[in-house]
Amino acid sequence: MQPTPRLDPDKLQHLVDDIVDEVQPLLEQGEVAAYIPELARVNPRQFGIAICTVDGAIITGGAATTPFSIQSISKVFALTLAMHLEGEPLWQRIGREPSGTPFNSLVQLEHENGIPRNPFINAGALVVTDVLLSHGASARQLLLDFVRERSGNSELSYNERVAQSEAECGHRNRALAHFLKSFGNLQHDADSVLDAYFYHCALEMSCTELARCALFLANAGLDPYDQARVTTANQTKYINSLLLTCGTYDAVGDFAYRVGLPGKSGVGGGIVAIMPGHFSICAWAPGLNRNGNSLAATAALDLLTTRTGISIF
Amino acid sequence: MQPTPRLDPDKLQHLVDDIVDEVQPLLEQGEVAAYIPELARVNPRQFGIAICTVDGAIITGGAATTPFSIQSISKVFALTLAMHLEGEPLWQRIGREPSGTPFNSLVQLEHENGIPRNPFINAGALVVTDVLLSHGASARQLLLDFVRERSGNSELSYNERVAQSEAECGHRNRALAHFLKSFGNLQHDADSVLDAYFYHCALEMSCTELARCALFLANAGLDPYDQARVTTANQTKYINSLLLTCGTYDAVGDFAYRVGLPGKSGVGGGIVAIMPGHFSICAWAPGLNRNGNSLAATAALDLLTTRTGISIF
Amino acid sequence: MQPTPRLDPDKLQHLVDDIVDEVQPLLEQGEVAAYIPELARVNPRQFGIAICTVDGAIITGGAATTPFSIQSISKVFALTLAMHLEGEPLWQRIGREPSGTPFNSLVQLEHENGIPRNPFINAGALVVTDVLLSHGASARQLLLDFVRERSGNSELSYNERVAQSEAECGHRNRALAHFLKSFGNLQHDADSVLDAYFYHCALEMSCTELARCALFLANAGLDPYDQARVTTANQTKYINSLLLTCGTYDAVGDFAYRVGLPGKSGVGGGIVAIMPGHFSICAWAPGLNRNGNSLAATAALDLLTTRTGISIF
Amino acid sequence: MQPTPRLDPDKLQHLVDDIVDEVQPLLEQGEVAAYIPELARVNPRQFGIAICTVDGAIITGGAATTPFSIQSISKVFALTLAMHLEGEPLWQRIGREPSGTPFNSLVQLEHENGIPRNPFINAGALVVTDVLLSHGASARQLLLDFVRERSGNSELSYNERVAQSEAECGHRNRALAHFLKSFGNLQHDADSVLDAYFYHCALEMSCTELARCALFLANAGLDPYDQARVTTANQTKYINSLLLTCGTYDAVGDFAYRVGLPGKSGVGGGIVAIMPGHFSICAWAPGLNRNGNSLAATAALDLLTTRTGISIF
Repeated sequence: MQPTPRLDPDKLQHLVDDIVDEVQPLLEQGEVAAYIPELARVNPRQFGIAICTVDGAIITGGAATTPFSIQSISKVFALTLAMHLEGEPLWQRIGREPSGTPFNSLVQLEHENGIPRNPFINAGALVVTDVLLSHGASARQLLLDFVRERSGNSELSYNERVAQSEAECGHRNRALAHFLKSFGNLQHDADSVLDAYFYHCALEMSCTELARCALFLANAGLDPYDQARVTTANQTKYINSLLLTCGTYDAVGDFAYRVGLPGKSGVGGGIVAIMPGHFSICAWAPGLNRNGNSLAATAALDLLTTRTGISIF
Repeated sequence: MQPTPRLDPDKLQHLVDDIVDEVQPLLEQGEVAAYIPELARVNPRQFGIAICTVDGAIITGGAATTPFSIQSISKVFALTLAMHLEGEPLWQRIGREPSGTPFNSLVQLEHENGIPRNPFINAGALVVTDVLLSHGASARQLLLDFVRERSGNSELSYNERVAQSEAECGHRNRALAHFLKSFGNLQHDADSVLDAYFYHCALEMSCTELARCALFLANAGLDPYDQARVTTANQTKYINSLLLTCGTYDAVGDFAYRVGLPGKSGVGGGIVAIMPGHFSICAWAPGLNRNGNSLAATAALDLLTTRTGISIF
Repeated sequence: MQPTPRLDPDKLQHLVDDIVDEVQPLLEQGEVAAYIPELARVNPRQFGIAICTVDGAIITGGAATTPFSIQSISKVFALTLAMHLEGEPLWQRIGREPSGTPFNSLVQLEHENGIPRNPFINAGALVVTDVLLSHGASARQLLLDFVRERSGNSELSYNERVAQSEAECGHRNRALAHFLKSFGNLQHDADSVLDAYFYHCALEMSCTELARCALFLANAGLDPYDQARVTTANQTKYINSLLLTCGTYDAVGDFAYRVGLPGKSGVGGGIVAIMPGHFSICAWAPGLNRNGNSLAATAALDLLTTRTGISIF
Repeated sequence: MQPTPRLDPDKLQHLVDDIVDEVQPLLEQGEVAAYIPELARVNPRQFGIAICTVDGAIITGGAATTPFSIQSISKVFALTLAMHLEGEPLWQRIGREPSGTPFNSLVQLEHENGIPRNPFINAGALVVTDVLLSHGASARQLLLDFVRERSGNSELSYNERVAQSEAECGHRNRALAHFLKSFGNLQHDADSVLDAYFYHCALEMSCTELARCALFLANAGLDPYDQARVTTANQTKYINSLLLTCGTYDAVGDFAYRVGLPGKSGVGGGIVAIMPGHFSICAWAPGLNRNGNSLAATAALDLLTTRTGISIF
């Protein structure tokens, strides 16, 4: 066995074309997220995929340029910003372990006195958002600036209707925020944190933009397009390890087992994954499996890593 | 950034020598496992390390050839055997997710009706042992044959006194076994499963032997010494992903974050880790941190991956 | 053994006088509730006690007429109103079992899908308040009218500063309300329910007024002063049984064991208890034990039942 | 309202006759305990009831003299003996609070470091049995002597086949015993404790014998037949309060609410209840409701207390 060789972009394009065909039947099977009306209205028969290599190649398939609600994928970028702005003290307020409980559970929080298990469950992301609020007048704007710069699309924006819908229906997240506040693990008032958090979830981006935005994670923290240092090599390694152990809700083991890449999913149906040293990838299909991960996007990533033999394992 | 290059054995030897020096002060700090008298008697001021590369090089440092109690590291080899013998049906009886609770917890088992979260918590390993019992007269002998063959040392054996000590003091494991039995998730009687399990934990091996034994996991399932096909490429990937997400007790996130390699620890102080495509490694020091992982062995692996920049992330 | 005889009021007065003396040293020992600033300011060296018999006698001792914050004792009167207004359907939204967890726990609520275990934990009282809101423009006024009528004191009122203090610091209760809302077990918005709830807790009454107000529970639901039918005989039995099994936070067993009467405590230091067929009683001292029940008031009730040999057991 | 008057034995006999008729349709509805083969074989169409008054009257109905497996009702007599033999130190090893979890749960035990919540859940009864073993060569014999003496039937004995069946199928109880042992809360080996425990559960007694045996609990600890002092008045009050708050599995609130008497149920279908100062009562029907309490026996006690207006509340 040899170190993983670079993938040939032409072969990769063929494989991506095959995957687009093969996942079509799966688009019927998942369930579109229904917890907010705006998401429930999305047409489930859509699929997109985009790969950005560290050498600058971009391979796409299907509806790769269709914007969708990135939802929890925003947690990766929020964490990146918070690690940059706050540094090590961040980890006094958030753990780095898989939770073993659903992403919106309050049980773990009660047993562990208000310290969320990791930054990718909702409680953890609320604390991350609180940290961003301590470093700028607008946590909302901080994240928007970040994804606009990384994706190279200055038009990126929040879907106002989705953000409103989240705010109206997000009773569980409100419970989490007030619970964190009761443990003293929010410095700002719960409503301000929730407002920024709901907007983060309501960002709309396409597969191509998301893969482009996450490419620094495949390149030791350096964005190969503009040579910007987004994170240190160590921070990059840390984020990828957190994605692997905590990035896909209560199915991290299954995702690691099937896909074998660090990744983060959102209930909008997107999944971003990283092959360190090689590429970032985003697949998207609105229908979810029972763990809240996109059914067809997971299958697409599974096919890609199985057919190429590529994975971190 | 380029695909991880092969490490130069000479440079690696220098690094290992440095690490041996640097971890010495840590040998004072951990706590030797005290739950059975036999383990409590071990001298804490010992440290060994061994690396086996897929090219056949062996780099060692410190007490690399001193045998110690492998304890939970045996779970990796038991799982390897069970995956080979039982195949996919194994996963109807054991999950593949991190537990979020201590390795010997009964809580998760009660909430999830007797299906252990993964094969590396004690409950999962008891089910694995039960599976081995279904495939041979002696689960004890099956594992012994396996490690003797892989390590190339036909003298390897169980420490009878440790096994007895485990049997006398293993009330919690007895509770787990009877609890599994009450859910119908053991086919053999609890005492037979426990007997084999206690012997597995009492295996004595050195760092060199353990690294050698686990080398197939760094080589897509093929042992480079005798070209034996131990696991398929896919099974290998699966085992490594399970090691990463579930291999180091309640500290998998921290281990992934600091070390960045799939690994399995034992309360005897050993840790085996894998760099797929490159090498297997075993470090050992008896003193444990509060998560039950060897304090100095974790630090050694941290130093190695940080200094070389090698990790799967 | 004979059916419990009526207590002689004169002897009871002597006993009460003794108790007032004997509990003095205990007033130094408890901890005044500190979770809201207004309560933390109360002088701990106060003790009052009042007994109202079904025959119309009133026996008092100490600061029996000093008003204090009734806090959770309001839950008894809120439940009485809700049972009257809503009837049996109430129990589709609230359980009748002891919780085995602290009064403000969210864990049980998550495991049991938003159905609070009983009406005396905070989550249950929030649902009761929501029910009152469905039966009147003002849940606040409904309760105020009730206690004014039963106590015969039309001046009773809420302490505005305590209510504000609760509203500002009640993050945990806010978390509970939003959590209930996320399960669909609040019909009104969380803020309206919380507002009424915080006011209920901020009612100020004296021992004499509280004992007088609860007297119907000792008389099969009939207030002996004005012959008003407050609850049916069956409802009265039900409320008393709930008090016994769920009325004193996470110490119901200990309270039943030591005092042997149905009772309800509040973090303001008051405890109301009932000897069915005989009397209602209220004791008050601000210092709390580690379960959140008044240390000296519990001791006083213990002394009373032990010396008289009276208890429901 | 007046103190509860003594019931007229003749009227009580009429009422009991009515109850025997009225519960007949319910005998079809429950589920006979199936966890051990011996219990599963019992004919569900049986019902018995017996009342022993402190004045010496005995009122019976139905199959009041048919022996059945008393199962968990034995926990009352074991506790009585342990309180007598061990005194207050008993409560350092067992709590006195309702558990809020099923009778055979291991979760609470793990969270509370091996201290069972109360003596009536299985874990608590195992500790009680361990205490009995410390006070006599045979815990089995101690209990047998007690029930023989109290019931006046020196022929009472264990059903050997039920005891064997319990021992063979009692995996959950074995798990509990080893779990307790792992926390150091059993002084004897798990198998000895389990052996005695299984025999206690296998005692066979009739309604008349059980009511007779528990009569001291209705008479302040004095057996009115032979004037034997079984427990002190205080101990009696304590046992009754524990019965009320912890005696009927995960349905203590419901039982207190409907029946309003301290009681203890067994999966053999028996329920013993106490009206302090008045009578003891035992009803029996093998079919259980979903909480593990006899469906028809609960209904019978409900009818009795509702029709007579008698209850401790």
